[in-house]
Amino acid sequence: MISVAIIGGSGYTGKYIVKFCNEHPNIDEFVIYANKSANKTIYDVFPDLVGEVENSIIKNASDLVLSHDVYFFALPHGESLKYIPLLASNNKKIIDLGADFRLDSNETFLNTYKIDHPAPEYLTNKHYGLAEINDTYNYNLIANPGCYPTAALLSSIPVIKNNPINIQSISTVAYSGLSGAGKKATQSLLFSENYNSVKAYNVGSHRHEIEIAQELNKYGSNLNYSLTTHLLPVFSGIYSTTIIHLKNNVSQTEVNQMYNNQYQESTFVRVRETPPELRWVIETNYCDINAKCVDNKIIVTAAIDNLIKGASGQAMQNMNKLFGWEESLGIKSYKEEFQNV
Amino acid sequence: MISVAIIGGSGYTGKYIVKFCNEHPNIDEFVIYANKSANKTIYDVFPDLVGEVENSIIKNASDLVLSHDVYFFALPHGESLKYIPLLASNNKKIIDLGADFRLDSNETFLNTYKIDHPAPEYLTNKHYGLAEINDTYNYNLIANPGCYPTAALLSSIPVIKNNPINIQSISTVAYSGLSGAGKKATQSLLFSENYNSVKAYNVGSHRHEIEIAQELNKYGSNLNYSLTTHLLPVFSGIYSTTIIHLKNNVSQTEVNQMYNNQYQESTFVRVRETPPELRWVIETNYCDINAKCVDNKIIVTAAIDNLIKGASGQAMQNMNKLFGWEESLGIKSYKEEFQNV
Amino acid sequence: MISVAIIGGSGYTGKYIVKFCNEHPNIDEFVIYANKSANKTIYDVFPDLVGEVENSIIKNASDLVLSHDVYFFALPHGESLKYIPLLASNNKKIIDLGADFRLDSNETFLNTYKIDHPAPEYLTNKHYGLAEINDTYNYNLIANPGCYPTAALLSSIPVIKNNPINIQSISTVAYSGLSGAGKKATQSLLFSENYNSVKAYNVGSHRHEIEIAQELNKYGSNLNYSLTTHLLPVFSGIYSTTIIHLKNNVSQTEVNQMYNNQYQESTFVRVRETPPELRWVIETNYCDINAKCVDNKIIVTAAIDNLIKGASGQAMQNMNKLFGWEESLGIKSYKEEFQNV
Amino acid sequence: MISVAIIGGSGYTGKYIVKFCNEHPNIDEFVIYANKSANKTIYDVFPDLVGEVENSIIKNASDLVLSHDVYFFALPHGESLKYIPLLASNNKKIIDLGADFRLDSNETFLNTYKIDHPAPEYLTNKHYGLAEINDTYNYNLIANPGCYPTAALLSSIPVIKNNPINIQSISTVAYSGLSGAGKKATQSLLFSENYNSVKAYNVGSHRHEIEIAQELNKYGSNLNYSLTTHLLPVFSGIYSTTIIHLKNNVSQTEVNQMYNNQYQESTFVRVRETPPELRWVIETNYCDINAKCVDNKIIVTAAIDNLIKGASGQAMQNMNKLFGWEESLGIKSYKEEFQNV
Repeated sequence: MISVAIIGGSGYTGKYIVKFCNEHPNIDEFVIYANKSANKTIYDVFPDLVGEVENSIIKNASDLVLSHDVYFFALPHGESLKYIPLLASNNKKIIDLGADFRLDSNETFLNTYKIDHPAPEYLTNKHYGLAEINDTYNYNLIANPGCYPTAALLSSIPVIKNNPINIQSISTVAYSGLSGAGKKATQSLLFSENYNSVKAYNVGSHRHEIEIAQELNKYGSNLNYSLTTHLLPVFSGIYSTTIIHLKNNVSQTEVNQMYNNQYQESTFVRVRETPPELRWVIETNYCDINAKCVDNKIIVTAAIDNLIKGASGQAMQNMNKLFGWEESLGIKSYKEEFQNV
Repeated sequence: MISVAIIGGSGYTGKYIVKFCNEHPNIDEFVIYANKSANKTIYDVFPDLVGEVENSIIKNASDLVLSHDVYFFALPHGESLKYIPLLASNNKKIIDLGADFRLDSNETFLNTYKIDHPAPEYLTNKHYGLAEINDTYNYNLIANPGCYPTAALLSSIPVIKNNPINIQSISTVAYSGLSGAGKKATQSLLFSENYNSVKAYNVGSHRHEIEIAQELNKYGSNLNYSLTTHLLPVFSGIYSTTIIHLKNNVSQTEVNQMYNNQYQESTFVRVRETPPELRWVIETNYCDINAKCVDNKIIVTAAIDNLIKGASGQAMQNMNKLFGWEESLGIKSYKEEFQNV
Repeated sequence: MISVAIIGGSGYTGKYIVKFCNEHPNIDEFVIYANKSANKTIYDVFPDLVGEVENSIIKNASDLVLSHDVYFFALPHGESLKYIPLLASNNKKIIDLGADFRLDSNETFLNTYKIDHPAPEYLTNKHYGLAEINDTYNYNLIANPGCYPTAALLSSIPVIKNNPINIQSISTVAYSGLSGAGKKATQSLLFSENYNSVKAYNVGSHRHEIEIAQELNKYGSNLNYSLTTHLLPVFSGIYSTTIIHLKNNVSQTEVNQMYNNQYQESTFVRVRETPPELRWVIETNYCDINAKCVDNKIIVTAAIDNLIKGASGQAMQNMNKLFGWEESLGIKSYKEEFQNV
Repeated sequence: MISVAIIGGSGYTGKYIVKFCNEHPNIDEFVIYANKSANKTIYDVFPDLVGEVENSIIKNASDLVLSHDVYFFALPHGESLKYIPLLASNNKKIIDLGADFRLDSNETFLNTYKIDHPAPEYLTNKHYGLAEINDTYNYNLIANPGCYPTAALLSSIPVIKNNPINIQSISTVAYSGLSGAGKKATQSLLFSENYNSVKAYNVGSHRHEIEIAQELNKYGSNLNYSLTTHLLPVFSGIYSTTIIHLKNNVSQTEVNQMYNNQYQESTFVRVRETPPELRWVIETNYCDINAKCVDNKIIVTAAIDNLIKGASGQAMQNMNKLFGWEESLGIKSYKEEFQNV
């Protein structure tokens, strides 16, 4: 049984980490730390958790202690840099849901996030936790992938791994529910400004584009990649459509093989025969994927819950794998799982 | 041809006043004044009006001049009190979309809005502009009704006028789209906090309850009235359901007569044979009403667009009536209207 | 360990019964029967359940066998009458989520549902399964309450029990998500006909009004009750607002006591200090309730998930109580529950 | 003054044709013909038009007469083929909102729509009415572009015209509100099946892809084009994102020039400096476009109302241009327009 610290636990993502910890058979303590919500109770911040979890007082992030076994960070970028280097140097298990350790190079990090990284050695000594792809856990510091990268990378890697020199261009057009933008009071995030609407944002400059390109280029080289992100008028969920233009034709059969081979052992990726519907994955840790091939184009549609597979669920999956446990512990609640514990 | 001032013209309501002024055949100038949005252009504030209205710079509310013919105020309560007494003493035509002049008594105003009214003489020397009911315009200062009161009063008055001593209780349960709460950045108004949800608010203490009771009691006495308000996860629209319990039974035929008699000459009230659907009235100045009678209960359903019939549209209707013009000028754009001008 | 039959398991409600059975520690077999969906697989009908439950073929309802321990019926009204009398005469445990056994009298049933009841003896020899109120299970046939009645009765009974002669009128105005209308292809239920809209329906004639009045009159007599129902543009959830007009004033303190006394031992009713938000209860079996008192009026707001607390969740709760098990088994998945089994 | 026939006027698109005809200063008669809705009144079919248009009985499509001046067809594909050849041979002005005359070749039509075209001579002797691009009206038969093609072509043509040999690939990913699928009762179009969801459909096989490729190839050759379409959970609107990969870099300045040059005289295309928001164009005939250039990629976002710019509004625009009138007559209702008539 382990003790877990959740730092930045009062946001949309934090709530799911709390819920998953509460249901996890190997966790017997979880403590929430926050900045603005410190000294409030869990029930104050999440009225829907009344009766679901035991109530407790949220501690001040500055009172974080070294006695926990695992640390989940769900803070705005730059914030976790205050805590992680010390914990990492004590060899603590850390899962950072933020962006501070996702990029591999100090220079790219500086260009992208405009912060001079205080512990650049951990940019290389970390595990990029795309759970279905990066299966060997050599570090105790895990950079949990961004929500768009999770969908885009799971969509693209099976093709690129198998056709590194046949790729002409890769374009992901993705739509995210508004929870992805957090719950800070901002006029542009008001209900009245988004209902019945859609807008592209950060076109040509979304930081996740750099994260995706970094990972894709581990399988190919000089890949011509583009990510375009949009706000979808729903609470949660990402729907991503990736168009891969190839230099030569491939067959649907070959494409099916690439995806089935990659994901046949994956609990949380469901390869579909038709394009997924977003609602199939909401409130779950699944990534549903369909790849359709027409001549020299492959169109890959993928759906995830941005708060779960794109954040807290994948974080739990990473924790489970880091400990060598069944990867679905705490995340999937069906009976068999509990009978086997 | 007249010149119009729109003070507080950068909100959701303001946009419609701008649009209606732009289409009104007797208005050849409209000037927008605001506080926070001063010095921006109309196109900055309302990108959807590009090409629809001529662009101009929004003036500072403190630069308001006396040379306009009509003044529309769409300011938070308390704010218009800074301007209206001076304008009113100059006998200007004023339509206040806010709450500052709706209540009749200084004491009630103080209790309700916690402001000592600086010009209480205008609480009595004003016209409560419920356009279909209060048809004689004796004052140049018009208090435009609140959005909930518009729906609730148009729903209730036909019965109360005809049965003042037969009323046991009147309960309005109303749902409003979030635009009714304005566009100020507030966490509780975020998309993510309201999508897929509903909540009652200000239960037992909504200020509009006092406004409605005041007007209803002009037709009955000691009426037992209750208003309960909710946020509906749409942009605009109010759906109100009013349950009138009677001491004795009435027939459906009698009820139909009350509503038909009241509204047969009204351009903007459509008496329906079935409960209205909210979408029928969105983007229009209509109030659609159905009254269903079962024994000693009358259930009245009504739908309006809160920003139009509940605010800017009724304001234009009041202006038209104040000038003695056809009440639909500027609001309904169909051909016949323009051919007759 | 028991075997469960789910008849009519391919609708929105059926899916949740499947999920709850799948997670229930005392159920080791569940078989789905249906009419139109017979011979399809669970995965065909519920693509989101892939990987969540074991796949199996849906059987034809006409092949229903007597060897199961519990039978859940989720059929349109009139349909379960073909099966239940035989099962009941074999003293099987039956939970009918439909309306066929909710009313107590054959005459009322005929007037309301236009069907001459083939087994009227079970209209009296049944348990009306409002789980928090009717706590003694004397019969193996359980009529699971309607969705609106669940919200309206849990809202009203605490007051009526304590004030049977002080009630002047009770009016419930309730809004339901569209899943309540089922998934039959009907033009009026299309997305395009309901988005951005609201409509009242069956005004003055909703069958649930009769069901609610029947149960309320067990606590008072000749109560003046009214239910008005609306379609809310969300998938699931009921928000109900009940206005109780009293002959004499009561205090907020007295009202709080009535609700706290009634529900302090209830796992699934959460008495709230503010009006609930619908999203707090979605995907749960909770009924969240707030009662606000102003002079001689009590305004009770309540929120439930119509498919869970208003149907499948309450059905599981009833099954658990019928067997004398912890009422939350299978419905709440948090850790402690499973550790105690 | 002219007389207009609207055939298939009872759908979502038909309603807007009725509204625009009603407001058009040069139309003094419009007659609605339909199949299923024949003998109903306009008010029966469109309750929201009560008081907005004069009521009349919808005629049977089989009673269509030759005495009208203009014919708008809004029928399912294949249906207008029964009427148009006769009308066209009488040299009537015809605007077909359906797909029957959009493709240029009989063979492509047969492959795409599985119908042997009965009047293939009109596939060439017709005007493809992309109003901002194809400005010379040589034929009285106008094929009104599909909704996706309108957005995709207005997005792509400015670049392709100026860089025909520099294009590597063009991919449009577009989302449409559900009104695009019509109002036929179909389970997959139910509110409950689409709320809170998104799905790609007809991936790799959408007929509009062929229509778009046909038109694009008039400016380039062998363009590598891909269209992927999705259902967006709103009533109306299309948001399209087109990724153009180039062989060589271009500058943002050059890109701006292409769009500004193309559309500077266009009333209904608004070139934006930021990606448009869908709500800016809803209920209007505008297409709002932004083109963002990054190295060798151009990302073009465009928003239209699928029922207006993507159907009925562009149809009116085409009618106006065919008659040599101001193209905004009937579509934009602002004052100046009517003063100039």
